[in-house]
Amino acid sequence: MSKNILVIGSGAIASFYSAFLAKKTQITMLCRSDYDVVKTNGIKIESPIENLHFYPQVINNLNQYRHQADYLIIATKALAQIDLIAMINQLNYLPRNLVLIQNGIHIEKKLYENFPKINLISVLAFVAVSRISSGIIKHFDYGKLIIGNYPNKINQDCQQLIDLFRDCNVEIEASENIVEERWKKLIWNGAFNPVSVLGGGCDTKKLLDNPFCKDLLQKIMKEIIALARLDGFNLDDNLIDKNFELTYKMKPYKTSMLLDFEAKRPMEIEAILGNAISFAQSKSVTTPYLSTLYALLSCY
Amino acid sequence: MSKNILVIGSGAIASFYSAFLAKKTQITMLCRSDYDVVKTNGIKIESPIENLHFYPQVINNLNQYRHQADYLIIATKALAQIDLIAMINQLNYLPRNLVLIQNGIHIEKKLYENFPKINLISVLAFVAVSRISSGIIKHFDYGKLIIGNYPNKINQDCQQLIDLFRDCNVEIEASENIVEERWKKLIWNGAFNPVSVLGGGCDTKKLLDNPFCKDLLQKIMKEIIALARLDGFNLDDNLIDKNFELTYKMKPYKTSMLLDFEAKRPMEIEAILGNAISFAQSKSVTTPYLSTLYALLSCY
Repeated sequence: MSKNILVIGSGAIASFYSAFLAKKTQITMLCRSDYDVVKTNGIKIESPIENLHFYPQVINNLNQYRHQADYLIIATKALAQIDLIAMINQLNYLPRNLVLIQNGIHIEKKLYENFPKINLISVLAFVAVSRISSGIIKHFDYGKLIIGNYPNKINQDCQQLIDLFRDCNVEIEASENIVEERWKKLIWNGAFNPVSVLGGGCDTKKLLDNPFCKDLLQKIMKEIIALARLDGFNLDDNLIDKNFELTYKMKPYKTSMLLDFEAKRPMEIEAILGNAISFAQSKSVTTPYLSTLYALLSCY
Repeated sequence: MSKNILVIGSGAIASFYSAFLAKKTQITMLCRSDYDVVKTNGIKIESPIENLHFYPQVINNLNQYRHQADYLIIATKALAQIDLIAMINQLNYLPRNLVLIQNGIHIEKKLYENFPKINLISVLAFVAVSRISSGIIKHFDYGKLIIGNYPNKINQDCQQLIDLFRDCNVEIEASENIVEERWKKLIWNGAFNPVSVLGGGCDTKKLLDNPFCKDLLQKIMKEIIALARLDGFNLDDNLIDKNFELTYKMKPYKTSMLLDFEAKRPMEIEAILGNAISFAQSKSVTTPYLSTLYALLSCY
């Protein structure tokens, strides 16, 4: 059964997963600067898995969307300056499901509180994709999604979306505790991203080769694991070693935050650090490492 | 009674204080790249106090110095890559007194251990001076020295140097506990210097105006005060507020570490942070704030 899927975001992640979903269902994308190019040429994905080319319905204002979306997928960068609540309120009909494909921790909270009647689905993307130009996306590696309802469980609407992704050849894993998965991903993101920028622009190899940096990364990871435990998720200390091992195995690369910084794009500081620190403060816990990184990045 | 004074360093600090001392005594300076210019044109100080112009004896290798120096003044940047011990060993005669005019904490220790027979005098300079070009120094503000024997007390040789500075119109204050004075200066230096660089190049006003930064500076200062106490000096917590008040009163300016960073000169990371952290480790104390700054700067 075809679904009405509306996608906010026309960057690499939004385009990549839309292209897969478009195999089986109608996709509408909100495009701003990309509007004309995407309307004329569609979106092309160059991928080692399969090359894809599709033409979404394109709108440049959310009030042009005449349906109730079954799934409103938000796949923008997780930036404090993007007011998602105001955007959703521009729609003629509130969507049945809100699907966040974004980085960070506790990014669902405000939407959950503001739209208590909308079923909220939270998704983590493990994928290396880059937007080459308007409508042209290059996929380098990985692609798996982890998905679950916020704050937890998997309901029927979520399961139907999982099935749809699977039918479209996207590797997807369901989690009954998506917030725990977010904390797990934050162990890496909250450490490597800020240090790569604040260390003056280091790729993963340079960070790992510097013993002071490696020690710092470890301390940050410990702090994140402690916060996750306070949030009710008993993450294992060995996740630190596992994250290091995985990073050693990968080719040296620049973190997404470093790429954003170098391209003078806004960085996901609130989603990755700010929310974790706010949570710590709500529990009266200090986070010297995360707070130092946050304060330094707040100057940029 | 004239003294043989040999000065290592031909930067702003070395030139500035040499120019004052030259009023009353013979100064020999070790110059490298500045050798020809200083030999021909001498050193000029443009200062709101008084303009000075003097011709030091100039050498470009320490073994050219034929005397025993009464005072060997070391006024280079406090950099790990400058091997002072090897330099001193190049001299034909070890000096009677070794005088360090440098930033940082515990910078005297290695020299003290390596030259147990040389009287060691430690000096802090509170001065805003800049080297405009070879032999041309601009003095903006301040100028006071704090001086004492290392590790403590004031002996006769130290007192004679104090008297000489005073005769030459340099404001100088004697301290029986120069290490305590170094910790006090580190409260400001250890906080503002690294954060000004790691915050992406912030002057003092920008740091103070950012509440996250100000909070971070405060935390760093607390950590330094705790270390000073471990080192036997009971610094008062109100030094934090005093440092902020003083900084608010001054015109916005860039820290010396930021100026070094921007000019791609080496930064005084070991003297300002590394030594403090080593001291903490020797006392089995963790310093999350200082260690984070150090690790990040170690990537530069």
